[in-house]
Amino acid sequence: MNKKTPFIRAEENPLVTPDMVKPWQKGFQVVCTFNAGVAQYGGEVLLLLRTAEKPPQAPEGFVNVPELIQEHGNWRVAVRTLSLSDPRYDFSDPRKILDREKGNYVFLTSISHLRLARSRDGVHFTVEDQPFMAPDCEMEAFGAEDARITQIGDTYFINYTAVSPHGITTALAETKDFVRVRKHGVIFQTEARDVCIFPQKIQGKYWALTRPVPRQIGEAKIWLAASPDLLHWGEFRPLNLPRFSWDGARNGGGAVPIPVESGWLVLYHGADRASNRYSMGAALLAKDDPARVLAVSPEPVLFAEAEYETKGFYPNVVFSCGAFLRDNEVHMYYGAADRVMGLARAKLADLMSALRPPVQ
Amino acid sequence: MNKKTPFIRAEENPLVTPDMVKPWQKGFQVVCTFNAGVAQYGGEVLLLLRTAEKPPQAPEGFVNVPELIQEHGNWRVAVRTLSLSDPRYDFSDPRKILDREKGNYVFLTSISHLRLARSRDGVHFTVEDQPFMAPDCEMEAFGAEDARITQIGDTYFINYTAVSPHGITTALAETKDFVRVRKHGVIFQTEARDVCIFPQKIQGKYWALTRPVPRQIGEAKIWLAASPDLLHWGEFRPLNLPRFSWDGARNGGGAVPIPVESGWLVLYHGADRASNRYSMGAALLAKDDPARVLAVSPEPVLFAEAEYETKGFYPNVVFSCGAFLRDNEVHMYYGAADRVMGLARAKLADLMSALRPPVQ
Repeated sequence: MNKKTPFIRAEENPLVTPDMVKPWQKGFQVVCTFNAGVAQYGGEVLLLLRTAEKPPQAPEGFVNVPELIQEHGNWRVAVRTLSLSDPRYDFSDPRKILDREKGNYVFLTSISHLRLARSRDGVHFTVEDQPFMAPDCEMEAFGAEDARITQIGDTYFINYTAVSPHGITTALAETKDFVRVRKHGVIFQTEARDVCIFPQKIQGKYWALTRPVPRQIGEAKIWLAASPDLLHWGEFRPLNLPRFSWDGARNGGGAVPIPVESGWLVLYHGADRASNRYSMGAALLAKDDPARVLAVSPEPVLFAEAEYETKGFYPNVVFSCGAFLRDNEVHMYYGAADRVMGLARAKLADLMSALRPPVQ
Repeated sequence: MNKKTPFIRAEENPLVTPDMVKPWQKGFQVVCTFNAGVAQYGGEVLLLLRTAEKPPQAPEGFVNVPELIQEHGNWRVAVRTLSLSDPRYDFSDPRKILDREKGNYVFLTSISHLRLARSRDGVHFTVEDQPFMAPDCEMEAFGAEDARITQIGDTYFINYTAVSPHGITTALAETKDFVRVRKHGVIFQTEARDVCIFPQKIQGKYWALTRPVPRQIGEAKIWLAASPDLLHWGEFRPLNLPRFSWDGARNGGGAVPIPVESGWLVLYHGADRASNRYSMGAALLAKDDPARVLAVSPEPVLFAEAEYETKGFYPNVVFSCGAFLRDNEVHMYYGAADRVMGLARAKLADLMSALRPPVQ
């Protein structure tokens, strides 16, 4: 059980917990603060936390769900009360409510926004009082989730999951100062999560790991895409990444790829078929051709073991959206059990030792 | 039952049937020739037929499925024989075979390619003996389906559904002469069918109707996308198209949009919840802003009534991938019952009379 992984947890874990975050909406309760995008800016480590909050509890027999509604041209969070005996809905999943006739989810029980936390030492974080990016348009009516931050020059591009009754899409925004932010809209249509944009052009183009979710044919796994301008994407093809037991059910992009001497270090997530446990794995892609997999980790480089990883909102999850290399050490921030944030560090050499060439 | 629609069927229907098409693969049987892309070229009407063919019948208790395999660097069609008693698979759908453990489809029972047919009068067609575009790469391992042809200048852009074990994607190709064709690869990642590219730039960009299929949240319906170069797409948003009973289950792009004086005429397909009957509807989008719906048909403009539409490979389907305007008459070619090709014509004035402004 206690297999050694190259990543070692910070003693201070969990670093950010829901009690450290003031709710955005009056009367709401912050239930999770996790899956943060990561940036180094102005000598600080920044986390862009996915912060999920719930409306006040409904009376017995009812449930309150949040939803963004448009009023006089502006979008605001409203609360809708549903009866648990309403035959149209299936309430068995605590995170989302199924429309029985349509066969899809029509409400989420919490709404997420993106909140900034800052740290000088990368371990002790101060969480801002207000959202950095809040859902404020039709395509974000169910929330903004799971940011990834890619620094290109002096601009930080933030891609995030924009969820609405229309589906689960990936949207793009940018900031230069983490104060003002400009939204660019949806760059990948539904169903697309877990997009990681590479921080440099390769072959004269921008590249991203994408994670389309097919309905009929195929599996949820990592693809590649390319773009001339970060806004329009094409050249789609699956990443030829060997699959293992730990990511046998699905995998997807995790941290934004890190340039290292021997290629692109990709830290990605996977879930297994047996228990739906979410672990982190690593791969090395060729510097000049991200479609070429040079090496991959047959075993997870981090898996849920600590109590804050095995117990939470969704148990047995470690899920990174951002990491960086400093002094030959990889600092990987990660959401734990869909509730809190942790940090694990690996010596680059130890991480590389865990990788093997793909057998193909 | 016999509601009057603006579209009137050609007396010669069905225009193309499987017996008119020689199989691509030796020993295979052409079972369907339908959902054709349409072009006007060199004084002729061209149909780019989706032609589906089946391997020779397997012995009792077995089924033969086609699959593209790579041999010495080239892709060719091979036949795999599966036992009907193999517990891994569910054979109940005659079109595709489900992997019970994975929960997705892992084989199709036929393989489609794109075959050209030519006609001087638009009614009597001669079908070429060989494929115009055959599946020949990893992303087309289960076939190439449902072409749409968009003429821009002297180039004909062909987008089509590329199906493989990786999923259902949309790929792009181009030709200037319908002899030589150049493939550009996948422009929309899985799950994407029913893409219709507008034949002119609008607001300085190319536009397309797309039809993503969500898995968890949202419905299969028409979206819009924009592109600087036809290869990379973004600016995704759902088309704000009112839904009716006839397209209550899902809708998607049909014929390539036709510029008319008052806007873009869009002929699109929809299926109803009650019977999954596929009908054609019409909408008018603003010439300078395709996101703006000016009018829409509350009733189908054509629905399955004729015997070749109500009986076939998949019954009760009319499904157009291409149409054109000539002498104030819209000529709409359409697949019928997923088996044959038909033609229906409508006076533009009659079609416009069937449209109503959206109530919003």
